[in-house]
Amino acid sequence: MSFDCGEHTLHVKPDLFVENRRRLVESLAGKALPGSFVVLQGGVGKPRYNVDLDEVVFRQESYFFWTFGVHESELFGLIDVDSGKSVLFPPLLPEDYHIWEGKVRDEAWFREKYQVDEVIFKNEFAISDYLEANKASMLYLLEAQNTDSGSVLPPAPSQFVPGILYSLSQNNLLISFQIRSDTSLLYPIMANLRVFKTDLELQVMRYASQIACEAHKDVMKTLKPKMYEYQGESIFRHHTHFHGGCRHLAYTCIAASGENGAVMHHGGPDAPNNRQTKDGDMCVFDMGPEYNCYSSDVTCSFPVNGKFTPKQKIIYNAVLKANLAVFEAAKPGVRWTDMHLLGEKIMLTELKAAGLLQGDVDKMVQSRLGAVFQPVGLGHLIGLDIHDVGGYLGDALPRSLEPGLKNLRTTRTLQERMVITIEPGCYFIDQLLDEALADPKLSKFLIPAKIDEFRGSGGVRIEDVVCIWAKGNENLSKNLPRTVEEIERFMA
Amino acid sequence: MSFDCGEHTLHVKPDLFVENRRRLVESLAGKALPGSFVVLQGGVGKPRYNVDLDEVVFRQESYFFWTFGVHESELFGLIDVDSGKSVLFPPLLPEDYHIWEGKVRDEAWFREKYQVDEVIFKNEFAISDYLEANKASMLYLLEAQNTDSGSVLPPAPSQFVPGILYSLSQNNLLISFQIRSDTSLLYPIMANLRVFKTDLELQVMRYASQIACEAHKDVMKTLKPKMYEYQGESIFRHHTHFHGGCRHLAYTCIAASGENGAVMHHGGPDAPNNRQTKDGDMCVFDMGPEYNCYSSDVTCSFPVNGKFTPKQKIIYNAVLKANLAVFEAAKPGVRWTDMHLLGEKIMLTELKAAGLLQGDVDKMVQSRLGAVFQPVGLGHLIGLDIHDVGGYLGDALPRSLEPGLKNLRTTRTLQERMVITIEPGCYFIDQLLDEALADPKLSKFLIPAKIDEFRGSGGVRIEDVVCIWAKGNENLSKNLPRTVEEIERFMA
Repeated sequence: MSFDCGEHTLHVKPDLFVENRRRLVESLAGKALPGSFVVLQGGVGKPRYNVDLDEVVFRQESYFFWTFGVHESELFGLIDVDSGKSVLFPPLLPEDYHIWEGKVRDEAWFREKYQVDEVIFKNEFAISDYLEANKASMLYLLEAQNTDSGSVLPPAPSQFVPGILYSLSQNNLLISFQIRSDTSLLYPIMANLRVFKTDLELQVMRYASQIACEAHKDVMKTLKPKMYEYQGESIFRHHTHFHGGCRHLAYTCIAASGENGAVMHHGGPDAPNNRQTKDGDMCVFDMGPEYNCYSSDVTCSFPVNGKFTPKQKIIYNAVLKANLAVFEAAKPGVRWTDMHLLGEKIMLTELKAAGLLQGDVDKMVQSRLGAVFQPVGLGHLIGLDIHDVGGYLGDALPRSLEPGLKNLRTTRTLQERMVITIEPGCYFIDQLLDEALADPKLSKFLIPAKIDEFRGSGGVRIEDVVCIWAKGNENLSKNLPRTVEEIERFMA
Repeated sequence: MSFDCGEHTLHVKPDLFVENRRRLVESLAGKALPGSFVVLQGGVGKPRYNVDLDEVVFRQESYFFWTFGVHESELFGLIDVDSGKSVLFPPLLPEDYHIWEGKVRDEAWFREKYQVDEVIFKNEFAISDYLEANKASMLYLLEAQNTDSGSVLPPAPSQFVPGILYSLSQNNLLISFQIRSDTSLLYPIMANLRVFKTDLELQVMRYASQIACEAHKDVMKTLKPKMYEYQGESIFRHHTHFHGGCRHLAYTCIAASGENGAVMHHGGPDAPNNRQTKDGDMCVFDMGPEYNCYSSDVTCSFPVNGKFTPKQKIIYNAVLKANLAVFEAAKPGVRWTDMHLLGEKIMLTELKAAGLLQGDVDKMVQSRLGAVFQPVGLGHLIGLDIHDVGGYLGDALPRSLEPGLKNLRTTRTLQERMVITIEPGCYFIDQLLDEALADPKLSKFLIPAKIDEFRGSGGVRIEDVVCIWAKGNENLSKNLPRTVEEIERFMA
């Protein structure tokens, strides 16, 4: 059995997750104690406040999904580290479940669909009985910290710690056998495995990005001046779902036009893509679906009327040049921080050539002028999460305190099989420009009268999803009109 | 300022919420102590697990929205019960918020948009200072219980209780003045006010249901055999967003075909609308958007190929007859429980006429045979929540323990300005049929050979959104092809 949404969509075999589990067990060899088990808890649906409906269609927690590929909610999963044997514990559903929610699946269905060794429905003693019967002496639980927000994914509840009265599925249980638990070993190992994509994972990520590109093209063909930003969002979402089988988006659509192009996360509740586009606007549409939980994240910038003004061309070409230069330079062994600085340097060089800036470009970069025009990081790892995990593991340098650089979601050196977004941007943000003009270290580079001509125009961002390879990078979002000429021809 | 999504969408004035607050203050007169304030806490965005992105575009908590109409997150709202004066406390946003999320609004913007008397940005002492300065002696907090799920909306945190070290926006504060709080008065009053819709609320609900109908028609025109259920979902969602400005759905789309029509909440994670439709299938598409947080909830049942088979006609016409009979009979003063039984009786009468049942229909109803074919309630109050509040307040009878009736979300007598769904259905569910055949009290009514012909066919549901009026009910979802002939003509 594979995951798919019909003949016209990608079929994803459970082998992907069998391989992930194998990689995990291999990585634990020599580190995990004998008799140890990995214990992971899957996600649980969240209601909208106290309403009896879920806020959103359930989406699995990403670490659990990486390990088991399971779409259903309220499961636990175990891996016997010594043998590599995997066990899923699905919830025991009420007898009338099928009347309300759909088919109740049996052990064989779960076993076959997810290619695990054993399936045990989770009554109140199932997990502890299993651990006791298999003489578990150590449990490795996942306590994962988000390195951007600091938010922590709590480990599976402490019911596995010996002698503690614990609650599982609202049942109180007493564990009587001796077993220890650890929450520190698993996180860095799993997060780092997630950074490097397997061939099977890359197949899914290619598909998600390909659907994103087709949907972006649909938007570019359909959107016209005077339409509303959210209508572009709606076209995009429909295309990815209807044609691609992508029920979830990887993130809230940023469908920004005009001045909104300079708001990095436009589209949220305080700026819900509700501006009416105007003839002459640039659009910055940053949207991506997920397929089988793997994300895409693609930004297209284009004039809503299909024709660039000379000023729009200047900014667009500056950003495109930065995008292409980083794509070329981002080789294994290169530090991502240096790619950010390279992107800035190219962009600032172009802005100087266009008469917006003056002085030595290297000094501009050094004094962090780049962050005035691009306050956000150059890109981020991407995978099961849009801002994927592991950005500050491995050989990462500590997070910088400097403008722009402090917003980098990774400072690692690039390696093969990392998938990362390359998304340079140039934004005209009054507050940042005014602060820079008031700062002698920065104001000397600025030509205010020329810059004023661009104020209020928003911004440009060109974002690709890229897999790093020694033989030359792979652009997962390559099927897009990207040059000024290609875009004008495509939209004509 | 009004809420809208462009010229082509409904403009909703803040007067709607001014009136709601006026109704609340009037209802509290004589019940609230002098010097009392209503304190409500707005919703807060929820991240996807520990990821640094919200799970879904923020949607306001419904009680808070009913009172203030506010779309933004992390606000508090106060009403001075003596004077009726209202105050909003928006969060103090970081200085660079506009770079990331959008414009930072000032006091005047909030005051004008939401027509409140005062706006105070919420530093750590703002609310307590305001209460102290205004000599508050009693706070009414909302502790709302969902009468279907039992889930409780927690009241605004206890920072308003005297002498307690409390946490507000991560700041620890000590309240030194004396003030009491109560969590019992507000809930039944607010929930009951929400049951009865004002003219201004009805305007929004009419709009949401009208958009739902147009989107359902789009689906019926576009869907063809061999397309996937989720493609119908995608068409629906796109239509409501693109044409109607409805960014949120009121609930997860139920886009059921064939046997899935007998799964009440098909479309969730365990049954994600991923079946390929077959020529000859009935479709049961139960989908509704929300506009300005007001829900619609409409079900269309139709053959995917546009032509009813004789057997499909039998079931469809039985359900339609029940729907129309309840629409006529559901007058002020009539108990909803009796409407459920009326719907059952009509449907069972038709099934008997078609040769599926035998015996006395009144006795069938009495022995709860109806619940074999329709295990779910006839309908539910609808408003800011799809399953709206207040169903077991007022003159409601305690929840029944009998099949079918135990699933009613209200047992109240109907009154003018209640908005309720009328959604009779007839489903062929093997487990329920088999249990009935094994039960002598029920099996005597069943003609097994005839019923067998319908097994596996799924079901039919016909659902309207209806406002109760003494002069005759108003069908908010009236612009739909509903008879067999109308549907066949429309889909031809």
